[in-house]
Amino acid sequence: MSSSFSAVEVIRTKRDGKVLSDAAIDWVIDAYTKGAVADEQMSALAMAILLRGMTAGEIARWTAAMIASGERLDLSAVERPTVDKHSTGGVGDKITLPLTPLVAACGAAVPQLSGRGLGHTGGTLDKLEAIPGFRTRLSNEEFVAQLSEVGAAICAAGEGLAPADRKLYALRDVTGTVEAIPLIASSIMSKKIAEGTAALILDVKFGSGAFMRDVEDARELARTMVALGTAHGVTTRALLTAMDTPLGLAIGHSVEVEETLEVLAGGGPPDVVELTLALAREMLDAAGLDADPEKALRDGRAMDSWRALVRAQDGDPDAALPVAPETEFVRAERDGFVAGIDAYGMGVAAWRLGAGRARKEDPVSASAGVVLHRRPGDRVAAGDVLCELRSQEKERIPAARELAVAAVTVADAAPEQGPLILETITDR
Amino acid sequence: MSSSFSAVEVIRTKRDGKVLSDAAIDWVIDAYTKGAVADEQMSALAMAILLRGMTAGEIARWTAAMIASGERLDLSAVERPTVDKHSTGGVGDKITLPLTPLVAACGAAVPQLSGRGLGHTGGTLDKLEAIPGFRTRLSNEEFVAQLSEVGAAICAAGEGLAPADRKLYALRDVTGTVEAIPLIASSIMSKKIAEGTAALILDVKFGSGAFMRDVEDARELARTMVALGTAHGVTTRALLTAMDTPLGLAIGHSVEVEETLEVLAGGGPPDVVELTLALAREMLDAAGLDADPEKALRDGRAMDSWRALVRAQDGDPDAALPVAPETEFVRAERDGFVAGIDAYGMGVAAWRLGAGRARKEDPVSASAGVVLHRRPGDRVAAGDVLCELRSQEKERIPAARELAVAAVTVADAAPEQGPLILETITDR
Repeated sequence: MSSSFSAVEVIRTKRDGKVLSDAAIDWVIDAYTKGAVADEQMSALAMAILLRGMTAGEIARWTAAMIASGERLDLSAVERPTVDKHSTGGVGDKITLPLTPLVAACGAAVPQLSGRGLGHTGGTLDKLEAIPGFRTRLSNEEFVAQLSEVGAAICAAGEGLAPADRKLYALRDVTGTVEAIPLIASSIMSKKIAEGTAALILDVKFGSGAFMRDVEDARELARTMVALGTAHGVTTRALLTAMDTPLGLAIGHSVEVEETLEVLAGGGPPDVVELTLALAREMLDAAGLDADPEKALRDGRAMDSWRALVRAQDGDPDAALPVAPETEFVRAERDGFVAGIDAYGMGVAAWRLGAGRARKEDPVSASAGVVLHRRPGDRVAAGDVLCELRSQEKERIPAARELAVAAVTVADAAPEQGPLILETITDR
Repeated sequence: MSSSFSAVEVIRTKRDGKVLSDAAIDWVIDAYTKGAVADEQMSALAMAILLRGMTAGEIARWTAAMIASGERLDLSAVERPTVDKHSTGGVGDKITLPLTPLVAACGAAVPQLSGRGLGHTGGTLDKLEAIPGFRTRLSNEEFVAQLSEVGAAICAAGEGLAPADRKLYALRDVTGTVEAIPLIASSIMSKKIAEGTAALILDVKFGSGAFMRDVEDARELARTMVALGTAHGVTTRALLTAMDTPLGLAIGHSVEVEETLEVLAGGGPPDVVELTLALAREMLDAAGLDADPEKALRDGRAMDSWRALVRAQDGDPDAALPVAPETEFVRAERDGFVAGIDAYGMGVAAWRLGAGRARKEDPVSASAGVVLHRRPGDRVAAGDVLCELRSQEKERIPAARELAVAAVTVADAAPEQGPLILETITDR
């Protein structure tokens, strides 16, 4: 049947708002992976998908075809129940760092394949690499062995997993076709399903600092992904969580590792603790484990698990983290209450300080970032420190300062604050 | 200013339904021509333009940027008034062949840069190449000299004219982005304006055999092109003409040249004569010439002009045209009236007989084609010949026969027929 398709016909079908057949989807993904469909054809198709949408059936087939483009890891040798978490990304979202060892400490195995930051949101692998020696590339054998021994591994996805997605993601990045729910959902889920986890909890964020600004878009993405996981035999649920304000106080790499250590030591900012525990409970429940994550934080088991994870990946859990030589405070100009801290603005400020990258190939500065001293709702007096800017290079600070100043609103009254966790989305 | 744009930002702007600034359009066309914007980025932008549309202002700027990507011919050395014609293409549309020498015979100079056929519609250059020796490539100098001496030249556009359009057209062809009115209009008009003509008459076709099936789309395209020409100082008008039935009786290359000779000799099918004269009158009027084209057909001046044109381009006007060795008749199966002859179906039949090409690189057969023996409205008896199929290769005939049989409808009553020329569109 393959030879009966042409790229132009497939593009036209979607362009004209029609549904792609299963065979057409299988053909186009396979042909693109092999190079028989050209980049300029796939980007036109991606734009048509972005503007015309896809049915649930098309998204399911598209995802299945991307999984079929590569290997699917076999985690059956891991004796613990496997459960993973994926976040759509936000500013200050270091939750994977405390959550993974915490859930491992409660008896699950967490096969966490993570990514790097692009734009204003940080990446888990970049944060972990702030730890001296930490190695984010593991072979499949190392990955499976570590899951059995430590119960957790956080590393980059191997080349063999969903290669069609790898190629398509790079293309979407340069062609303005990232923001298509069918393509986002299939990209995330093809990698997570190919990774071999039995259960998956999704943290789908909405708000100014999130990829999806609108809650309705986030809900649609969450529903789409939950349906995809379920269809592939992965127990999948999603939390819809707010991302208008940065998560916690730290935005950057070493500063977020420091905040992680506070959480694992039983402290840390309340919002980080709340979200970590909520996700841990969902993960443990999905894995069929009856355990109390709050207790595991309190009694030191989560910290032990973190140290084992870091050591297993050649990191030194006791090494000092990189510190930025240049720091500067941003202070309140008036008395009042912190009415809001714009996540997007602060994310871009951290990015400009050196924490982010403009292109995939760019290096990041481990020590750059922003540390908040006040949270929305806090009372401030003129001259109080609102946040601290950190960088390797002094000349990066003025532009970041402007962004940080603009990101914090001080008003006469404390703001009304919505819930951090809006709802849970399950398959039915 | 150039450096302040990024391809992704330009794509996103159009994708989100916003208007591209003049500077953004200038930048993207220039960067694409130079290779700084990649094919996969331009195809995503083309799909966004197709689905989101463009304002009149955007189309005008896009066209101007494509003209500016190359040279604009200077025809000021030509002493006659210059006027050209462009057809959006149809089945059996050989009008350029009799029209060009006819208008030249009436005192104008016709700088006709033409194209080749792709898909089910034929190309003027392919038709002329059925004439032994005819050369369709002329240098700019030859082109200008011939316009002065003969008053007409029909040849391929040089590489230097609107190179951005050349590159973009090839890309659109393989990415399902041909059918966008802003891109069609700017592609046609950038070449015609760069060609240097002072006036231009457009034959915009609608119906089953046309590129635009719907009259409303054709009207929009016509209005867009008339506005573009006018904005660039070219006197531009358009005729909206029906293309449900093939034009004339011949569909192919040498068969259409034969039909052209009949028209130039004062005969030929009435619809071809009607359209040729209507376009000639518009062209002469736009060129400011008071001449009677009907008389020029009758008194042999148009034929003389044709012979001069063919000779000037190294063709032999007296040479025998290629004849297909394989011919077959399609006969009526019942008594009645020809109710319709589907232009698209007959175009594809001629294509299958060898007259068309699937890809730009493919050769065409000069002698292949279809000759109609009956027209819509004609009374037929069972067994009467409806049309004749001609090919170099016998094995091409059965598939073409099926298409031809399906294309002709015989019914009990003669059909009501709409006008061939629906309306004239001028600027205002």
